[in-house]
Amino acid sequence: MRVAVIGGSTVDAPTYDTAVTVGRLLGERGHTVVCGGLGGVMEAVCEGASQAGAETVGILPGEDRSAANGWVDTPIATGLGNARNPLVALNGDGVIAIDGATGTLSEIGHALDFGRPVAGLRTHGIETAGFEAVETPTAAVEYVERAVPGEPGAR
Amino acid sequence: MRVAVIGGSTVDAPTYDTAVTVGRLLGERGHTVVCGGLGGVMEAVCEGASQAGAETVGILPGEDRSAANGWVDTPIATGLGNARNPLVALNGDGVIAIDGATGTLSEIGHALDFGRPVAGLRTHGIETAGFEAVETPTAAVEYVERAVPGEPGAR
Amino acid sequence: MRVAVIGGSTVDAPTYDTAVTVGRLLGERGHTVVCGGLGGVMEAVCEGASQAGAETVGILPGEDRSAANGWVDTPIATGLGNARNPLVALNGDGVIAIDGATGTLSEIGHALDFGRPVAGLRTHGIETAGFEAVETPTAAVEYVERAVPGEPGAR
Amino acid sequence: MRVAVIGGSTVDAPTYDTAVTVGRLLGERGHTVVCGGLGGVMEAVCEGASQAGAETVGILPGEDRSAANGWVDTPIATGLGNARNPLVALNGDGVIAIDGATGTLSEIGHALDFGRPVAGLRTHGIETAGFEAVETPTAAVEYVERAVPGEPGAR
Repeated sequence: MRVAVIGGSTVDAPTYDTAVTVGRLLGERGHTVVCGGLGGVMEAVCEGASQAGAETVGILPGEDRSAANGWVDTPIATGLGNARNPLVALNGDGVIAIDGATGTLSEIGHALDFGRPVAGLRTHGIETAGFEAVETPTAAVEYVERAVPGEPGAR
Repeated sequence: MRVAVIGGSTVDAPTYDTAVTVGRLLGERGHTVVCGGLGGVMEAVCEGASQAGAETVGILPGEDRSAANGWVDTPIATGLGNARNPLVALNGDGVIAIDGATGTLSEIGHALDFGRPVAGLRTHGIETAGFEAVETPTAAVEYVERAVPGEPGAR
Repeated sequence: MRVAVIGGSTVDAPTYDTAVTVGRLLGERGHTVVCGGLGGVMEAVCEGASQAGAETVGILPGEDRSAANGWVDTPIATGLGNARNPLVALNGDGVIAIDGATGTLSEIGHALDFGRPVAGLRTHGIETAGFEAVETPTAAVEYVERAVPGEPGAR
Repeated sequence: MRVAVIGGSTVDAPTYDTAVTVGRLLGERGHTVVCGGLGGVMEAVCEGASQAGAETVGILPGEDRSAANGWVDTPIATGLGNARNPLVALNGDGVIAIDGATGTLSEIGHALDFGRPVAGLRTHGIETAGFEAVETPTAAVEYVERAVPGEPGAR
């Protein structure tokens, strides 16, 4: 399936490593990664996914495709500014949020509004059905695999 | 100034009344109300604002302007679906959130991302600078008046 | 009704005067003017409409509402860049195109795609049902009044 | 490079065949095809490109990724309705328009507005710098290869 990974565009080293691990796990399990295409968590998850042979899609806020980080296979320029956030959420069957500030908060809202299950790793505490706070990259990936209808691990 | 009011499209009677009061207070103090143009909190706040003689703007998700509630003076059709949410947040100098589910959550995120102060009445608990949980309509209006730079009541 | 007026953001003096006249005629006949909110034709048509007492709406490409020209009563910031063009076209019941380059061409396409009749004054030559090349401001206004269903002058 | 191919969503058999040929030529020359992801010209060009081993991207107006035609490798759902048209134009380095009605006209306008060269095959007659009417699929592909800066065949 496709998993959208959202999070801060500037992060500390442990958060970056966590996002690389999430990307690698997603790639090893055969999932495609969708993200906002820029730096921080977006770059880290693409790096991990690429290393595991997965495809990566980056949906960018600006008009310049070359602004995508170096691990994005398919950059999509939108020119929509922050209105590209719902597109990132929409293009995952499930969503993993890692860290992140207010832009990530908007994406969590959009993801839940589109009916996407969201696993949250060290991010905003949301008390809404469909959002699950998790502690590890493995738990995040397992949650979305379980929660997306039609996936082999789905309930 | 302009205040964007966001919240659930279907609400119970006490929440509707709260939103009417918020709209009336905003109108009495000379503010323009921006909202998503549909029902529930959006309708209630326009009703209150109109009764106090204020102008109301509704930024709609669909292509049909006539979907706006009857208290909207200036309906704007977008056809953008949920990607109209950032436009609602952007068009207020300050934002008041009342109740609301995941769509409202996305709008709170966008508002904070655009640097808009947000007063929250019985809505999501957000722990981010710029978001203030308040208990009453008056406190909500006073918070955004105080927090928007350039307003007479601003710090 | 609402009439969207589209055209170049930098125009020569005769074109500016033509757009002022279109705006004044629309205002005198009780229509609201919608435009892209910036300079050139957009500014001229708002100037003319305002002088005739009409309301004006400007749907802006950027995030800053204060970028609207001084004759816009209700500025709407979008932050969508060129993706705000379909919103301008959508929010008129009929459309008048004056002069204009490629952005205006996109708006003519969107207007026709949304089923809006378009009167063209010294603009692109389009050979499509719903587009009518006209020679004068009066002919432009009369065309959209005639072509919009439900208007008193409609066929 | 990436070439966006735009055109009618329902076309006659000769137009469909022309679009298949355009897609095959683009694929044989190593280009990626971007389109609106639906039927008609969009489907035909993806079919041709896929047969030649090229990658295909479809940027859809709706929220449902599965609405993409069967030859799209990377579908992107937007939920933006007609406001997805500028995204299609933006994501090609050059654009080929085949047949098409008013939606295609809006995309030609957006493409030229973004500075993309456009080759037109049996489509609208546009008299603007950057638009070239061509007679054959080969001429269309050669035009965009020549007109996009940085391409080996570029002037």
